[in-house]
Amino acid sequence: MATAGKGVLLKADSIAETFRKEIKSALSSAPRTPKLVGILATSSAPSKFYSEFTKKQCDALGVEFVLKKTGSAADESLAPGEGVEEAIIEANEDDSVDGIMVYYPIFGMQQDHYLQQIVSPFKDVEGLNFKFHYNLYHNIRFLEPKTLASSLPTPSASDVPPAVNDEPPAGYVKSILPCTPLAIVKCLEYIGVYSMLLPYGDRAYGKTITVINRSEVVGRPLAALLANDGARVFSVDIDSIQEYTKRPRQTPEERKYHPRHVVHPSTLSLQDCLAVSDVVVSAVPSPDYKVKTAWLKDGCVCVNVAADKNFEADVREKASLYLPTIGKVTIMMLLRNLLRLQEYRKMISNAPSS
Amino acid sequence: MATAGKGVLLKADSIAETFRKEIKSALSSAPRTPKLVGILATSSAPSKFYSEFTKKQCDALGVEFVLKKTGSAADESLAPGEGVEEAIIEANEDDSVDGIMVYYPIFGMQQDHYLQQIVSPFKDVEGLNFKFHYNLYHNIRFLEPKTLASSLPTPSASDVPPAVNDEPPAGYVKSILPCTPLAIVKCLEYIGVYSMLLPYGDRAYGKTITVINRSEVVGRPLAALLANDGARVFSVDIDSIQEYTKRPRQTPEERKYHPRHVVHPSTLSLQDCLAVSDVVVSAVPSPDYKVKTAWLKDGCVCVNVAADKNFEADVREKASLYLPTIGKVTIMMLLRNLLRLQEYRKMISNAPSS
Repeated sequence: MATAGKGVLLKADSIAETFRKEIKSALSSAPRTPKLVGILATSSAPSKFYSEFTKKQCDALGVEFVLKKTGSAADESLAPGEGVEEAIIEANEDDSVDGIMVYYPIFGMQQDHYLQQIVSPFKDVEGLNFKFHYNLYHNIRFLEPKTLASSLPTPSASDVPPAVNDEPPAGYVKSILPCTPLAIVKCLEYIGVYSMLLPYGDRAYGKTITVINRSEVVGRPLAALLANDGARVFSVDIDSIQEYTKRPRQTPEERKYHPRHVVHPSTLSLQDCLAVSDVVVSAVPSPDYKVKTAWLKDGCVCVNVAADKNFEADVREKASLYLPTIGKVTIMMLLRNLLRLQEYRKMISNAPSS
Repeated sequence: MATAGKGVLLKADSIAETFRKEIKSALSSAPRTPKLVGILATSSAPSKFYSEFTKKQCDALGVEFVLKKTGSAADESLAPGEGVEEAIIEANEDDSVDGIMVYYPIFGMQQDHYLQQIVSPFKDVEGLNFKFHYNLYHNIRFLEPKTLASSLPTPSASDVPPAVNDEPPAGYVKSILPCTPLAIVKCLEYIGVYSMLLPYGDRAYGKTITVINRSEVVGRPLAALLANDGARVFSVDIDSIQEYTKRPRQTPEERKYHPRHVVHPSTLSLQDCLAVSDVVVSAVPSPDYKVKTAWLKDGCVCVNVAADKNFEADVREKASLYLPTIGKVTIMMLLRNLLRLQEYRKMISNAPSS
């Protein structure tokens, strides 16, 4: 129970529950139990923990999970990451595998980004293939399953029918979104940051959100997703602050609404951004980084996505709601992606060859 | 003329000349003048300089070069990189364009790596698409042109015929190699680090090479190329030293020759590596980083790939040969890739549809 006057500590369990039910029901009507391959290539404790967590969640829901250990995860005398590409290629080529999850970090940001492109987009449950990021950044919500086989990004946005609601038009399916940013959006929907009274695709309009981290895995896709949904987003990293918005502040005559977010450098400081932010999401991979409670707007929502806590212990003195972790929602998004990709792959193999 | 007792200062011009002639001759028999689009998206002086250099080289050789300016390169009030994705997509979709070159850095390492995947592999003259890197890392030297259209990396190495010489087998063409690492290999071939007396694919056997930098654009692909060609390579970055080799040091009974390089952590220090290195390549993007002349092996070859000089002014007191810059060779590799990709795209459009 929340102490009077203090913000509420929100656990991810209740948010994950809705999706757990949805997945369970979808699984009961699935033609075949989906198979997820996890690839563990280092002896890192958090990665090992996360692989055990994945297994537990899959077991509970009835998804087949196979953990493939390679490199220093298989044998301490091997180098971290040794054999990881071979394991990915094998899973790409194995028709019985529906999804591939690789436990990062392995080699570091750049080489890991390369690895992420090696995973077949048909099995990329983490949503890290550049084709999915391309769609996300361009606010392209639907795709034709056959385009997943092409080396090109989805054709010009003008060729894709505009999204008027959550339902893909005939011949199209939903694009795959990266799990962590999507889980954060789902948490914000649950909390009510998204308004169901607003039109689809613009339901975060009126909200100001600060996202601390601009990696290609979490911060930038999240800022883009939120801004594409109408929010004004400050994207903060160690070097700069940028504003992501569909409604840039110009003179009233010039003011223009964009079909997708545009990015501009911001002259605000972090303190300025926090002072006006309804939501603060932090994903800085350091135990030393802390968002100052004193800088938060009274009654804001704070979401911690980092493994260590990025908020001070007294965050609820200012925040009305505080989510210390979202991992349980993230895994549900991954399993939702798994079910979708299994379906997309089936659509392709059933399609008449052209 | 070299001062007696001092190493030779080698200019890239003479190395580039061979390729210039080869390209000129290929152009004279090309069915159509190839068209290269350069995309300049920042106001960075080195990028602007490099775009002018590209134009000059193209003009001299008779390649059509079109510079497309966007973002802060087009208008100072725009953000760096604004519109760059749109410019890439437009060039991808324009049938008259044979090659696309983007002047990096734009957004920083991670986001730039994403951008590099947006360029069609059929027009990726810089060789930065993950498919080309995949082939390079796996020592897959040839590919079927149609596989460039697929979102998957080339199938398992076992499906690809082994390279017995420089000539691709029927139905295959040469894979595209990233320009800068390839230019360095060509310089080392010119210098005689590669021995023509050794069998194809193993001509750097016996040479020890230190590569300082392990980026996905220069250092890692270079280390892999050299090790795939038989060299023992120390890959040095700020955090660690790794050894890339086809002949790892094991007990004589265990000693195994690999068809491609394997990577192991090294316990040597940089000083140890330099003391045994026949060649030292440095590509550290900092004017402050300098390889200590005192640590070099007497008579070694030093190649500077960084914009600033990574070697001390007295490097030739120890080095027998010193290449201060390789830019003119790099641009020739880019134009060679352009001619090849123009050909591969033609092969695809002429192929009977399946």
